[in-house]
Amino acid sequence: MSFSMSLSLVFVFFSAASIVDAQYSFKTDYYDVPLDHFSFTTCNSTFPMKYLYNDTYFDEEAGGPIFFYTGNEGDIEWFAQNTGFMWDIAPEFGALLVFAEHRYYGSSLPFGNDSFSSPEKSGYLTSEQALADFADFLLWFKRTRKGVQDSPIIAFGGSYGGMLTAWMRIKYPHVIQGGIAASAPVLQFQGITACNVFNQIVTNDFDQASPNCSASVRKSWEVLNRFGQSDAGREWLSSAWRLCEPLKSEDDIGNLKNWLVEVYGNLAMVDYPYPAAFLEPLPANPIKVVCQSLNDPQLTDKFLLKSLFKAVSVYFNYTGSSNCLDVSKQDAGSLGDFGWGVQSCNEMVMPMCSDGVGDMFEPLPWNYTSYEQNCLTQFGIRPRPNMAELIYGGRNIRASSNIVFSNGLLDPWSGGGVLESLSDSLIAVIIPEGAHHLDLRAAHSDDPASVTKARRIERAQIKKWIKDYYSAQSSTNEIPLPTIHTNNSSPEYDMVLPDTPLPLESSEEY
Amino acid sequence: MSFSMSLSLVFVFFSAASIVDAQYSFKTDYYDVPLDHFSFTTCNSTFPMKYLYNDTYFDEEAGGPIFFYTGNEGDIEWFAQNTGFMWDIAPEFGALLVFAEHRYYGSSLPFGNDSFSSPEKSGYLTSEQALADFADFLLWFKRTRKGVQDSPIIAFGGSYGGMLTAWMRIKYPHVIQGGIAASAPVLQFQGITACNVFNQIVTNDFDQASPNCSASVRKSWEVLNRFGQSDAGREWLSSAWRLCEPLKSEDDIGNLKNWLVEVYGNLAMVDYPYPAAFLEPLPANPIKVVCQSLNDPQLTDKFLLKSLFKAVSVYFNYTGSSNCLDVSKQDAGSLGDFGWGVQSCNEMVMPMCSDGVGDMFEPLPWNYTSYEQNCLTQFGIRPRPNMAELIYGGRNIRASSNIVFSNGLLDPWSGGGVLESLSDSLIAVIIPEGAHHLDLRAAHSDDPASVTKARRIERAQIKKWIKDYYSAQSSTNEIPLPTIHTNNSSPEYDMVLPDTPLPLESSEEY
Repeated sequence: MSFSMSLSLVFVFFSAASIVDAQYSFKTDYYDVPLDHFSFTTCNSTFPMKYLYNDTYFDEEAGGPIFFYTGNEGDIEWFAQNTGFMWDIAPEFGALLVFAEHRYYGSSLPFGNDSFSSPEKSGYLTSEQALADFADFLLWFKRTRKGVQDSPIIAFGGSYGGMLTAWMRIKYPHVIQGGIAASAPVLQFQGITACNVFNQIVTNDFDQASPNCSASVRKSWEVLNRFGQSDAGREWLSSAWRLCEPLKSEDDIGNLKNWLVEVYGNLAMVDYPYPAAFLEPLPANPIKVVCQSLNDPQLTDKFLLKSLFKAVSVYFNYTGSSNCLDVSKQDAGSLGDFGWGVQSCNEMVMPMCSDGVGDMFEPLPWNYTSYEQNCLTQFGIRPRPNMAELIYGGRNIRASSNIVFSNGLLDPWSGGGVLESLSDSLIAVIIPEGAHHLDLRAAHSDDPASVTKARRIERAQIKKWIKDYYSAQSSTNEIPLPTIHTNNSSPEYDMVLPDTPLPLESSEEY
Repeated sequence: MSFSMSLSLVFVFFSAASIVDAQYSFKTDYYDVPLDHFSFTTCNSTFPMKYLYNDTYFDEEAGGPIFFYTGNEGDIEWFAQNTGFMWDIAPEFGALLVFAEHRYYGSSLPFGNDSFSSPEKSGYLTSEQALADFADFLLWFKRTRKGVQDSPIIAFGGSYGGMLTAWMRIKYPHVIQGGIAASAPVLQFQGITACNVFNQIVTNDFDQASPNCSASVRKSWEVLNRFGQSDAGREWLSSAWRLCEPLKSEDDIGNLKNWLVEVYGNLAMVDYPYPAAFLEPLPANPIKVVCQSLNDPQLTDKFLLKSLFKAVSVYFNYTGSSNCLDVSKQDAGSLGDFGWGVQSCNEMVMPMCSDGVGDMFEPLPWNYTSYEQNCLTQFGIRPRPNMAELIYGGRNIRASSNIVFSNGLLDPWSGGGVLESLSDSLIAVIIPEGAHHLDLRAAHSDDPASVTKARRIERAQIKKWIKDYYSAQSSTNEIPLPTIHTNNSSPEYDMVLPDTPLPLESSEEY
């Protein structure tokens, strides 16, 4: 139970909705990437990685950049359609747009439909391999495509895609010149961020809509448990909530509660200021709308549950097309969910918990042992929960540069984000009115001023990175920094240390 | 033929001599590392990686650093014994010394004696996996060993080990605070450095000893070819050179010439100013000694060949213990050579060639096609020659920091080294009188002043890195850099961009 909540919360950490508004157009192509970039046990197997591109705005003469989306867990078309910011600013920068699909998602499946049949097949689904795909692709793309040989590359990504953007700049600074890592919870890992932060932020969002709303949710768990204990209660609930599958046992009420926990988390993520269909079609400020039905925690049990059903109907049935509520699914995702299941069981272990005090949920501690056991049972995979620290540095990323970490404070993932600037080129941007990577979405008339400002800061940083890139390019043919020649005949002798012994306490002697 | 020269030259690119002067003492232990750090196809298999450590000089109270040797292609004991610089300066820094063995060398064999039986087994032998071993080990070591939790880590390495030190700082700057990359030919890769540079430097070394010496070598190839063509010539040569295996065919003369090419390269690498036994026991300034017998290129054929034999006897038989010359082996290396054979066929493709004009060798172009074919035949491996560029950045490493690249100009590998500083913390140090990582060897009374100065610069850099590390540690609890809050109520509003549009040409507006 504790496991299913923890895993499933991460599980929907951005699976694609089926409804794609085909707002932007692009060309589609494939590039063969090695199945394994870091070992040689696979006979140099490769598979085709999908990518999309659009050169409408590319200004070759001005040395326009490549804007590169580091695809995350879903069809790449969906990310291309939902990252309007890149399309909005491409004309201003004369940028060539490229969106690369993450291995094991969409149609970039190394073993086709067999890709998840065993760890021997699914085991190459890691962020390290995906980043190497992107780097390999980009070097090839620059080498072979006319007009981009010397173009700087700016990466963009949101959510897990934002983590990939940040990690790509950390690991491949020779390939990309900078990155906009939007709502990237790079710190949401064991030993780095407390497991209860996510649920505290969800609670806070509901609390801000109305304290009665969070109080109603908080009260509902006990009522649901009570209804779940008797046949009569389960029958009433199955009927009142129009469940597709009637509740048969006390266990079934657990599934319903898990579904609710996920819905609250999802609502917090997509609490956008205008109608959107990111996970599900939703009205503007959906938490406010949900909370309109949850304004009285003193209601009697049945009225409370009826209100709650009305409230969550905003999430699963805003269009009114659902005949019944299926608590076994969250949204219209497909294979993407399965891929994320694997990733959350190998390296993307992001601890979640609640205590019912600082949050509106039932107490549910983080239990790594049962999490691990479930991964072994479900996928035959034993997680490596320290990947983020070992490979990418965890909190310790000050040696990197040229990353904007943007976070909306409505977004529960912001708790695992970089919220303080770490250097003058590792910049934290806070969007108080923003939900999950609102800044990456297209500009909208209902955008709060804060996201417009965030985008302006991001554009300014991108300009700076491009300018720095071209400055460095042109200066490489000028006088290099002095090399230290250690013999006396060298013209750089002035650089050489004096022959006196170097005192331990001072290091600025030469 | 072109392949065998190219491969074999790299082949001895530092295999261990059997003679280890047990000058330094250490404790030995093992740490289990994952067989594959980047995928999950191996059921989380691990194997024990050997490491050595010595805490005699460790100053826990003063927060002494860890000095970490990034083991390269051989027994780690041999590198520990041959890196006297670390031992020399450990007391001054209060450092804990650690030497980690590279996977697939020494006793760190993932599959025991079966480790090289097929690509499925040997395929995990890559620099990326080795660096992840080191990072994994170091995080564990700091976490579990008393007194080093907050110690900075400084890496050291020579030759391929120097490449690993540089690449480790490039890829894991959160694990090591800086590195001394001695004689690290990180640029000796296809498309980055010309293939003839190595042999030009070898030639130059012989030329500096005496122009007659290089002229003698240059002339010798034609004479050897002529002797190899006839039974009489081969018989005479087999006897005069006391060959263990008499020359039977014209092909055999090719093997002898390959052996000579390697000997000249090795002599250039270990052209140290005092007697040493790094590859073979040798006198001080061995090229000078070798060249004493090669001072007249006008000699008649047999006298020239006799002189040449006397000259190279300095290399293979300085101790006088060899009864015959075995041209099938270069030095007393063991399994290490086989491991390097695999690496040179998967990612460490370092092109070599000669033209007989700028160098004293027979013309031998770089032929990648035959190189690749030989790798497929010999190991079943198809190389990925662009690894250095793709994974580590090739020449494009300016985003990194805190690396000293030291190179001796006598060392033929210096041609693929970083010879110009790239930033104020990526520092090139040139040692005009130095051979292959002379600076990493223990101080010696016959050291040229240039290497003593190089070591002083290196110590100063290490002190700076340690100081910077502790400054950053103490400042993390102080006021962080301002985060950009994009709403007006934030106290950091001053950081926010003005509402006027940002002009394209300027990026310093906010």
